[in-house]
Amino acid sequence: MTTQQLIDQIRLKKSFLCIGLDVDLTKIPQHLLELEDPIFEFNKAIIDATNDLCVSYKPNTAFYEAYGIKGWQSLQKTINYINEKYPEIFTIADAKRGDIGNTSTMYAKAFLDDLNFDSVTVAPYMGKDSVEPFLAFQNKHAIMLALTSNEGAFDFQTKNVDGKELYKVVIETSKTWKNSENLMYVVGATKAEYFTEIRKIIPNSFLLVPGVGAQGGSLQEVCKYGMSENVGLLINSSRGIIYASNGIDFAEKAREEAMKMQKEMDVILKR
Amino acid sequence: MTTQQLIDQIRLKKSFLCIGLDVDLTKIPQHLLELEDPIFEFNKAIIDATNDLCVSYKPNTAFYEAYGIKGWQSLQKTINYINEKYPEIFTIADAKRGDIGNTSTMYAKAFLDDLNFDSVTVAPYMGKDSVEPFLAFQNKHAIMLALTSNEGAFDFQTKNVDGKELYKVVIETSKTWKNSENLMYVVGATKAEYFTEIRKIIPNSFLLVPGVGAQGGSLQEVCKYGMSENVGLLINSSRGIIYASNGIDFAEKAREEAMKMQKEMDVILKR
Repeated sequence: MTTQQLIDQIRLKKSFLCIGLDVDLTKIPQHLLELEDPIFEFNKAIIDATNDLCVSYKPNTAFYEAYGIKGWQSLQKTINYINEKYPEIFTIADAKRGDIGNTSTMYAKAFLDDLNFDSVTVAPYMGKDSVEPFLAFQNKHAIMLALTSNEGAFDFQTKNVDGKELYKVVIETSKTWKNSENLMYVVGATKAEYFTEIRKIIPNSFLLVPGVGAQGGSLQEVCKYGMSENVGLLINSSRGIIYASNGIDFAEKAREEAMKMQKEMDVILKR
Repeated sequence: MTTQQLIDQIRLKKSFLCIGLDVDLTKIPQHLLELEDPIFEFNKAIIDATNDLCVSYKPNTAFYEAYGIKGWQSLQKTINYINEKYPEIFTIADAKRGDIGNTSTMYAKAFLDDLNFDSVTVAPYMGKDSVEPFLAFQNKHAIMLALTSNEGAFDFQTKNVDGKELYKVVIETSKTWKNSENLMYVVGATKAEYFTEIRKIIPNSFLLVPGVGAQGGSLQEVCKYGMSENVGLLINSSRGIIYASNGIDFAEKAREEAMKMQKEMDVILKR
């Protein structure tokens, strides 16, 4: 999917919501456990109930790897289901990969080509040749960790590198990489004031924003400081939506929560 | 496996060699492709031919993920085979994972518990709470990226953070984390002179050293600057050993290459 197609979807749906499909078997409705593939059935129900309210789904690969081969089958079925039934959805493999060049190429092929995700999240620590392989696919994107939403973000990301925080150096440096127009960035919602600084470096790039909801970030604050002319934001919510209920009505309740966010986004987009 | 057991194995085998099982179907002997699981058959032959010459095997997960579900089956069969037949081997899942706490916990469980690897490689960018979940398993280890062997290492890892290179800040900070005695570090062989600096911070920690061989690093140089009293080094070689031949004799040739390295290591250990 091109960036323009993503922007068009945001305008059409009046939503820049991304729903994180972080499926934990201990948290999903227990009646699903009788089915052959409870994770896929859960995802399918959530997707069918919310696809008109969001523009993106983001399965976190850890939650699938944790169930071994069965987990990978669920991931594969989930991405295939989205691609076939809802091709207008921007899909994100939240994998946070990154390795030496030939190895990153294998990861990129696995997620962007074989599984056919629109994008994959990557870690910047190993630098240019660990990220560029993810940028080599037409109309596909790498979403690089810049400033994350967890406590540990302050261990290194905000450290002072020659007078500037590391996350800024990471973003600035990445702009010089080949096919950098295919880069998006992870910026946590728990630090809304940082968005002003980030927008000075990348005025128009898309930012994937975790941390709204369960982790305590504010949608209003993020949009105030982080929204660009072309919106430029994908706000992720996982637990707050998918675990809204663990009863028979889980999909319906997930829809209600997604709709609350979509309505708030609609108001913000009209401003 | 405890660190002491690893040291005992090194003394017993007179080797601190780690063999990287980075299996690419386009590079393995073509007669294996007729078998049901070529990747596992390749690994099995390499392992049977080299296990007395090395102390560790390190499958890089990218090479398995690239083949989807079949790849994960090969990975599972490989680790099970090593654990059952050669329990004295120190196993490393080279996965370079790292995410917010609850997600890192899922990854840690997948690799250290379910797949039962002795260790897993992790990325430091997200800080303390992204790494600590990997340190919570008794007699298991997290091997954290410090200074990698690729060109991109100079993009951020060697940047000056308040008068000190980032990789040093990363190592120093990690020493304060819970169960930090379970930490080992990835340090590339292509920068042997850096080992002196690193040993000032962590005199005894184990270092996993890629970059000897195909990437151009020197075993002699690494040992000169990096060896500790308890050896403290695992030297990885992947392509130079496993792809020594792509004919019927591939396992035999791999053994020859592994033996060359083991003999060189034996001489170094006797000094």
